[in-house]
Amino acid sequence: MRTDPLWLADQITYQIFPDRFAIGKPHTSESKLALPEYQVGDYTRRRWDELPENPSRGKDFFGGDLDGIREKLDYIQDLGATLIYLTPVFIAPSNHKYDTTDFFTIDPQFGGEPALRRLITELKRRKMRLILDAVFNHISDKHPWHGKYTTNECWRDFGHMPELNLANPELQDLLFRKPDSVLQKFCAMGVDGWRFDVAVDVGLPVVKAMREALPDTVLLGEVMCYAGGWCKDFTGVMNYYFRDALTNWLQGNITTRQVSAAMNDYATGYGHRGATCSWNMLSSHDTPRLRHSLPDVAQRRLALVAQFTAPGVPFIYYGEEIGMDGGGDPDCRRPMNWDESRWDNATRSFYKNLIAIRQSTAALRRGQLTTLEAVQLVFLRHTDQINETALIAINNSAQTYRQIVFTPHSHLYHALPMKNLLNPAQVVNMEAGNIQIELPPKTAGIFVPDDTRMRAYKFFKARNLT
Amino acid sequence: MRTDPLWLADQITYQIFPDRFAIGKPHTSESKLALPEYQVGDYTRRRWDELPENPSRGKDFFGGDLDGIREKLDYIQDLGATLIYLTPVFIAPSNHKYDTTDFFTIDPQFGGEPALRRLITELKRRKMRLILDAVFNHISDKHPWHGKYTTNECWRDFGHMPELNLANPELQDLLFRKPDSVLQKFCAMGVDGWRFDVAVDVGLPVVKAMREALPDTVLLGEVMCYAGGWCKDFTGVMNYYFRDALTNWLQGNITTRQVSAAMNDYATGYGHRGATCSWNMLSSHDTPRLRHSLPDVAQRRLALVAQFTAPGVPFIYYGEEIGMDGGGDPDCRRPMNWDESRWDNATRSFYKNLIAIRQSTAALRRGQLTTLEAVQLVFLRHTDQINETALIAINNSAQTYRQIVFTPHSHLYHALPMKNLLNPAQVVNMEAGNIQIELPPKTAGIFVPDDTRMRAYKFFKARNLT
Repeated sequence: MRTDPLWLADQITYQIFPDRFAIGKPHTSESKLALPEYQVGDYTRRRWDELPENPSRGKDFFGGDLDGIREKLDYIQDLGATLIYLTPVFIAPSNHKYDTTDFFTIDPQFGGEPALRRLITELKRRKMRLILDAVFNHISDKHPWHGKYTTNECWRDFGHMPELNLANPELQDLLFRKPDSVLQKFCAMGVDGWRFDVAVDVGLPVVKAMREALPDTVLLGEVMCYAGGWCKDFTGVMNYYFRDALTNWLQGNITTRQVSAAMNDYATGYGHRGATCSWNMLSSHDTPRLRHSLPDVAQRRLALVAQFTAPGVPFIYYGEEIGMDGGGDPDCRRPMNWDESRWDNATRSFYKNLIAIRQSTAALRRGQLTTLEAVQLVFLRHTDQINETALIAINNSAQTYRQIVFTPHSHLYHALPMKNLLNPAQVVNMEAGNIQIELPPKTAGIFVPDDTRMRAYKFFKARNLT
Repeated sequence: MRTDPLWLADQITYQIFPDRFAIGKPHTSESKLALPEYQVGDYTRRRWDELPENPSRGKDFFGGDLDGIREKLDYIQDLGATLIYLTPVFIAPSNHKYDTTDFFTIDPQFGGEPALRRLITELKRRKMRLILDAVFNHISDKHPWHGKYTTNECWRDFGHMPELNLANPELQDLLFRKPDSVLQKFCAMGVDGWRFDVAVDVGLPVVKAMREALPDTVLLGEVMCYAGGWCKDFTGVMNYYFRDALTNWLQGNITTRQVSAAMNDYATGYGHRGATCSWNMLSSHDTPRLRHSLPDVAQRRLALVAQFTAPGVPFIYYGEEIGMDGGGDPDCRRPMNWDESRWDNATRSFYKNLIAIRQSTAALRRGQLTTLEAVQLVFLRHTDQINETALIAINNSAQTYRQIVFTPHSHLYHALPMKNLLNPAQVVNMEAGNIQIELPPKTAGIFVPDDTRMRAYKFFKARNLT
């Protein structure tokens, strides 16, 4: 069976930093951290309710593991996420494991390979997907390949992380070309795809070679800039370009034209697959949490509306859905808060509503983007089906936003009622190819055609539904 | 002989609502309305100087007919119009005839088929064109096809106008596919094209089928929203999108950027043929008259300049040229005023001047559009002939407009004199690809190259004129 090339566009990604999400039964934080795999050198063992060591040495552990994740799949699935992305799980001295010593061994702190197999089995049962983190640019200086396959460079001059010589065909065989290579071994185990750390350091020719070796696998790059040139062989990227434009606009640092232009940049420049399959992240283990970037709850909601409606895959960093706080690394890597009495349930409901809206609105998952000429951020998503259109308007001002906005789309017919899915009482009729938008301060609308409002007449005739 | 596919772009359309334009000799209003075809049920007969019944029941008659139109062709031709578009002429119970009971019979109130033939003969003699109104989406509930070819739907839930099942191939044969079908019968009689009522309800597949049946006929859709997707098989559309953008801009409801973007939307999205062959209407039997939408005469003139210079066919709703007034339907359907002492002759002269300018300036009829970055509305029209360019500037502000505007066009040479056809004393020389525009409050300019100002030197060399 040929894989739908756009399946990733339909997912809701949930990112987990394994040491900080959940500890598998029967362990407690204390019993877990007493295991031999944590009894090493200058490591620190932290209680679940403590903050990460700050500044970080990458050596404070909380004891999270793959069995813990597996046991929380009910929670993740109830939220509506369909795909889990794990930061690295290969054995490494640090808590973040971006400095692996062996790409073929799952870290015993996380439960080793048996725990990964148990997680995959349970994900398959639930028809959920898994993406792992491939850190191919650099390794730990303790890795046996150090010297044999490394260059004289260290990543960003960090002496303990020498860079691999990825141009070496022998190394390429080990990493991705042979059936028992890193990528192929774990794909055979049931992993659905890979996120490549510091992808611009991995480099275009290596990405091309990986694409040739794994033509149908999701290969997603951590490209922290505009990534048009990277989406030829990558399925998509972590969409930092969008995140940065959106956040700066909400913070008042750039104009509406700029954020609108940036959205156009990636929607056209990444190609349709590249744009719709990129991860629209607002936060991650590498950035401050959303509550930190946008202290105003109303603005955070505007950010979420944009995240769930712009081309790309919504990406939820664990704990964002319950309103966790935290500044930059390591503060954003606090353990998941499982004390429900301290959850921000309004935020969690808002996420669930946005997920439900997205999953029932094909235009938001797979539609093309048309940005519109407007004072606030207004754009269309539309597929080739005439009744699959959504108009998104985001009012980042402290005033009520009222504007006539022209919509160059052939199937937003005159007099067609448009219902705001975020406020279903608000229904506005199209008028000669324009819509009169009205939104209270710091609110957003997701307007979709509502063809149920006349007794028998239909705007979308059966004969037109192509 | 193969028809020029862009002949429609060269026309000036004059729209007539037959019951309200003129009564053919020897009848007076009184004698005409005394004819048996008006002696029906709850009808109202109105004197020519009365207002339409308001609110409308569609059942007040003034007695206009096709012979009346024929007898006024000198008037229409003197104005400069070259194409007449008639709202429906097929037999129907109402005054507007959008509820036909037989597509093959011309309403006897209008003089029946003999009067149509007389009108066509006279139009051909004058080399004028005729477009009729095809109302294929719905019929009268009195039509014998009701039940046989209708769906369970009524148009916009109006019970007396059931919708036809246009997907039915047998019905398609009757309407447009057979040599004796509605469209083919009247085309054979000399009709040049068709305007399709509520075209989005007629639907894309039916339009495609009609185009296949009549490959060279003008088929023009009443599409009241952005119509990019509709111009593949339609020759053009009624350009409501442009009308709404322009009117809203003149009224101060949208920004210059918005109107400029909307013009770009249709000029690019409709394709060159679709854009240049769409009807740029400022009013119709379905909208308030221009005097009502724009009470300020200076602004009405700006609207007319835009109408005659933007891509598309200028479209004059009968009586606009003499400054008739009227709000929405039915007030906009007052009988044509033939009392010359009450004509607005300044407006009529303005129309005649714009028509003359357009007919002598190929760039305005067939040129491509380039909108320019400016504070007021400024755009270029240009053909592939190096000396066919026009720059239009419309100052909708109450202040004098002075701006240097850059013109990305390769044949507006440095030092080339540009003459304002609306104020021939104003000549401005191009300067390094820009023009210094200066316009008094609420005025417009149509600047074209004037290559006659030097004794012998020519900017446009014979060797360059492609």
